[in-house]
Formats: sequence, C-alpha cells, structure tokens
Amino acid sequence: MIILGIDPGLATIGWGVISSDGSKHRAVAYGSVITEAGLTTEKRLSQIYSDLGEIIRTYRPDAVAVEELFFNTNITTGIRVAEARGVILLSAFNHGVKVYEYTPLQAKQSVVGYGRAEKRQVIAMVTRLLNLEKPPKPDDTADALAIAICHAHSGASKIAAYYNN
Amino acid sequence: MIILGIDPGLATIGWGVISSDGSKHRAVAYGSVITEAGLTTEKRLSQIYSDLGEIIRTYRPDAVAVEELFFNTNITTGIRVAEARGVILLSAFNHGVKVYEYTPLQAKQSVVGYGRAEKRQVIAMVTRLLNLEKPPKPDDTADALAIAICHAHSGASKIAAYYNN
Repeated sequence: MIILGIDPGLATIGWGVISSDGSKHRAVAYGSVITEAGLTTEKRLSQIYSDLGEIIRTYRPDAVAVEELFFNTNITTGIRVAEARGVILLSAFNHGVKVYEYTPLQAKQSVVGYGRAEKRQVIAMVTRLLNLEKPPKPDDTADALAIAICHAHSGASKIAAYYNN
Repeated sequence: MIILGIDPGLATIGWGVISSDGSKHRAVAYGSVITEAGLTTEKRLSQIYSDLGEIIRTYRPDAVAVEELFFNTNITTGIRVAEARGVILLSAFNHGVKVYEYTPLQAKQSVVGYGRAEKRQVIAMVTRLLNLEKPPKPDDTADALAIAICHAHSGASKIAAYYNN
C-alpha cells in the first residue's frame, strides 16, 4: 500500500510517500511544502491545501498519516500549526483519502523502538529502514517518513492490506 | 457593507451577518453550524468548510471577521478549535472574501466599551445595537455578531467604506 506521512506546520510541512507491505518499505517521494512568512495566514493555508492536494493526486496514497500536535513551548506558534493541521486533514478528506493520526511518541516507538528517542535517532532509523543513500532533508521530511512507517507498522494498515489482497 | 462575524469552534460555530454603515448596524441573519461528535474530525472539518461556503455564497459579505483564539483552559479542546479555525479561514479565502481577525478583548471593548465585560453584557449590547427583539441564541451567535460589529467599528472597515462609496 501507498502511505503519505505528514509532519504538520504553517511555514514548513514535511511530507513523505512510502510503498509498504507492512514490514518492508520503500521511499517513493518526499519533500516539504514551504509557505512564505510575508503572506497572510489564510493565503498560506490555501497554499497548503492545494499543494497537498497536488501531492495526493500525484501519488494516490491509500492512507494519509498525520502527526498529532504536542504543545509544550510556544502556544501562539502552536495555534498557527493547529490551524494548518486542520487544513491538512481537510485536504486529505476532500481528496477522498482516509486519515490516521499518530502521536510523536507512537512514531518514535514504531521507528526506533523507543518513544523518547532523539531526532537524530529517528533520522538514522528512517534512513536505514528505507535504504536511503543519505539522511532525508529537511528534518521535517524525516519526521513525515517516520509517521508513514508508523502507519505501515500499525494494526489499521495491516487490516487494510488484508482486505485489499 | 455586509460583514460576516464568526465565533470559531469544532462542535458549534456561531455566525452572524450584519449590514453596517460603520455606526448603524442591522442584523441580516445569524445562526450556528453544528457538527456531530460521533463523526471523524476530518468529516466535521469538511462540513464546516462547506456550510460556511454556503453562508458566504448566500449573503455575499464584503468581509469576514473571525475571533482569535485565546487559550486558558483545555489545551486538547483548544487544538481542535484551532484546527477548525484554520478551515474557517481557508473557506473565507477560497470564496474570495477578505479576512480580519480580532481578539475577544477587542470585540468586548468595541461592543460594550470594556475589554473584560461579561458574556451577559456582550449579549445585552449586541441585542441593543442590532435592535433585536430578544437576545440571539445560542451564545456563540451573540459572540459572532459582536465580532461583526467590532469589524464595523474598526478602521479597516471605515477605509473600505470610504473607497467603496
């Protein structure tokens, strides 16, 4: 199955598409959507909505896995990221793709085997699990690929694969 | 000018349309969009997007005024409200209407003349300023009308009225 993982943001939205049978994974494409700080929030949200729509139409994922937000520092930034995340969920839904949500802890647990893993460990494991020649850049891209792998390892994904095969 | 005020939420989105010359205001229509708790978040966001689009197409506002979020209690609820707010901003933008944002403090200051006014004072002043026969229900509707009045009183609105006339 094809899975699109997304690391939400307003300025930088990491995305990664993998192909997976549940245990072996292959990176199909990854990158990040960047919105300019000088634009109005609603303009940036509109760009996120349409750029993600373009990615979904191009790679036709069976599932979109989106990281859940975890607020611990800047509440104002957090609100803007949550607004962008709403638009990300809407874009997936309106393009007919089922949405799954995972916490950062679940993603780290799934990829590194340890929920409190550091960012560099996540990057290293994503690089290894996907047989990439070098670590994916920027970091948001590695997080997005980790979320996609997390979904590939999940029960929801396995059930879908069972019914599709 | 026609102004659509919005009090954001995931479960209940208050909305109110007023017609205003900057000092005298008239209520055109108001109500609330309700989404069912049993639905997925993305389905609820999709309903908010399309219901607001319907309201905008019906009343053709010159401006949409949306209340800014102020987090003080439940962070999890707050994230969901922010996600819905992102979709509200997107819906206004994609329907070609300019978006303005006001804090609850600005709205209360504008309507009651006191930024820390209580909810019942806001409801009473909205009822009076719009010559309503009885207080608008539910409370989210009164908040939405207050945001619309706040925009009518604002400099941005006055400048637009100057260039339109």
